[in-house]
Amino acid sequence: MIRLCLTLSIALLAGCATQQGGLAIKDMGSFHVGGREVTLSGLPVKEVLFTAGGVPAKLDPNGVYQVEQMYVQYFVPSQQRGKLPLLMWHGGGLTGVTYETKPDGGEGWVNFFIKQGWTVYNSDAVERGRSGWAMYPEITKTEPVFLTKENPFERFRIGAGANSYSKDVSKMKPLPGNQFPLEGYDNFTKQVVPRWTSTDAPIIAAYTALVDKVCPCIVLAHSQGGPFAYRVAQARPDKVKALVLVEPAGVGDAANVSALKNIPSVSIYGDYVETDSRWPTIRANNMKFQDAIRAAGGKADLINLPAMGIKGNSHMMMMDKNSGDIAAVIQKWLEGKGLVQ
Amino acid sequence: MIRLCLTLSIALLAGCATQQGGLAIKDMGSFHVGGREVTLSGLPVKEVLFTAGGVPAKLDPNGVYQVEQMYVQYFVPSQQRGKLPLLMWHGGGLTGVTYETKPDGGEGWVNFFIKQGWTVYNSDAVERGRSGWAMYPEITKTEPVFLTKENPFERFRIGAGANSYSKDVSKMKPLPGNQFPLEGYDNFTKQVVPRWTSTDAPIIAAYTALVDKVCPCIVLAHSQGGPFAYRVAQARPDKVKALVLVEPAGVGDAANVSALKNIPSVSIYGDYVETDSRWPTIRANNMKFQDAIRAAGGKADLINLPAMGIKGNSHMMMMDKNSGDIAAVIQKWLEGKGLVQ
Repeated sequence: MIRLCLTLSIALLAGCATQQGGLAIKDMGSFHVGGREVTLSGLPVKEVLFTAGGVPAKLDPNGVYQVEQMYVQYFVPSQQRGKLPLLMWHGGGLTGVTYETKPDGGEGWVNFFIKQGWTVYNSDAVERGRSGWAMYPEITKTEPVFLTKENPFERFRIGAGANSYSKDVSKMKPLPGNQFPLEGYDNFTKQVVPRWTSTDAPIIAAYTALVDKVCPCIVLAHSQGGPFAYRVAQARPDKVKALVLVEPAGVGDAANVSALKNIPSVSIYGDYVETDSRWPTIRANNMKFQDAIRAAGGKADLINLPAMGIKGNSHMMMMDKNSGDIAAVIQKWLEGKGLVQ
Repeated sequence: MIRLCLTLSIALLAGCATQQGGLAIKDMGSFHVGGREVTLSGLPVKEVLFTAGGVPAKLDPNGVYQVEQMYVQYFVPSQQRGKLPLLMWHGGGLTGVTYETKPDGGEGWVNFFIKQGWTVYNSDAVERGRSGWAMYPEITKTEPVFLTKENPFERFRIGAGANSYSKDVSKMKPLPGNQFPLEGYDNFTKQVVPRWTSTDAPIIAAYTALVDKVCPCIVLAHSQGGPFAYRVAQARPDKVKALVLVEPAGVGDAANVSALKNIPSVSIYGDYVETDSRWPTIRANNMKFQDAIRAAGGKADLINLPAMGIKGNSHMMMMDKNSGDIAAVIQKWLEGKGLVQ
């Protein structure tokens, strides 16, 4: 073992001399957290052939189901510089893949923050991705929402309004100067998963269970993850030590703003907000919520990227061509809050 | 950068001196592969409130959907010893989580094989996990299957027959000497995802697209992944260089066995097969298929773990307490085939 270690260390040293990159990881793995059991009864027994050419098995759908658990993958760097773990929470209709390799093949924020020495927990919200989803309407009472390929192109401030999407990249009509890599858009649509709009409560419960398991921590949340991050921080103000909110799609509980007074937060917005049909209101709601946090004695920073010269960013800024610049802004903010060793 | 590298190398060396473990990773990331577009029309436009307190958005469900793509996560170790990448394909109702951390918290096969110097590609089959799933019955024509908590306990040869499952671990009735960690069973049920039984063709198409992208390679497949591995190897005999089949739930195309004559394979079975209602037939079918491969001039090895003294293994042997022993059996087989540098 010692010999292997020596070899590895020398190999790492040699690798470092010739190229950057590489991730020295002390530990990595995954787990599911939270969820509950639901019992169904009165349903007919089925015979199911699980595999063509296999042997049929009886499947009794009556019984106890495990539902509303959440999948989390984690990476612990060998050289830790972040003082606390960094939890990454994705937006609606997506999974933790949001923060992995970018749709154009570039390195995502998971790798960026591991390389900066952060222990990273990247999760799939309840009913998304590796968290699985529950039978409906028997358990989840409503239907899921599916997105067409063109829907996020307009809604995520990549395309210039109605009919800006085209399957042919050369015919796409992006917002002027947009940083989303158009040639990666098709790959991005492969990351989109079905999602419900009625599952806020179980999602918040699972994130709270995660915080109870692995925090104190910092939560970095995108879009739909933003209001979840606010609410979980309000429920666990002793465990969530900072919030990085990337274009949060909503705010926290206005009746309990004082719970956030000791949790520094930063809200970050990309470009084209003013010209969008929805984002001026969504951002204004958060600015009002930030005012309330400040009035309660808390600290809430606002970063409008275009105002600091970082232009052209879509709602999916962690996938934009200049995603590394924005990660660096976040890293600098975290350093400024004394969260880096 | 050089200073950071030196520090990292010294830290790794220091870490090695005190403990085993750690993963020196040159690169890691993820991508989606395969899939197709489907156009839906004639459906009513909805107004959807994606986030409570947000701003409603119109959602037109008519349009083009991306479906049947497959998610793949990869890890490239700094010190590569495997001559080819190792692709891990999971079984039915599960995802790539199968090979990650075990339900009892122990290290899974992804980490094991990375530490042995293999580049690992771990995927979620079409319509499972981070691959997403398509609208049904509009796109996928049939309904998915959901498993109760007790179903895999009997069917995966953990429990001793009917009514062997209990929510109370102390009241579970495992098969005598069973190696599945009972205290981890509840976590295991959190890994189970809905699955269809009508999606073999798109799953095989996506695995074939993966093989076209990253192979030549070795495929390690479990249960439902087994017949997929056989069929993809038959479709790409020049790219799949070896097959490790862990309790394959089916076989390949009997009309095209000669395509497998240059692809060494090993089929591995755990304990209790003889006393199960379905596994004697499933194994016998594969043994017959192996005979056909041999008759065509190919090599097909069979490992019955109990016969070599490794006893008590369930269908989920990569999660069993002695999963490392079985990984070592696989590693030894791969070394014997000259696939390790």
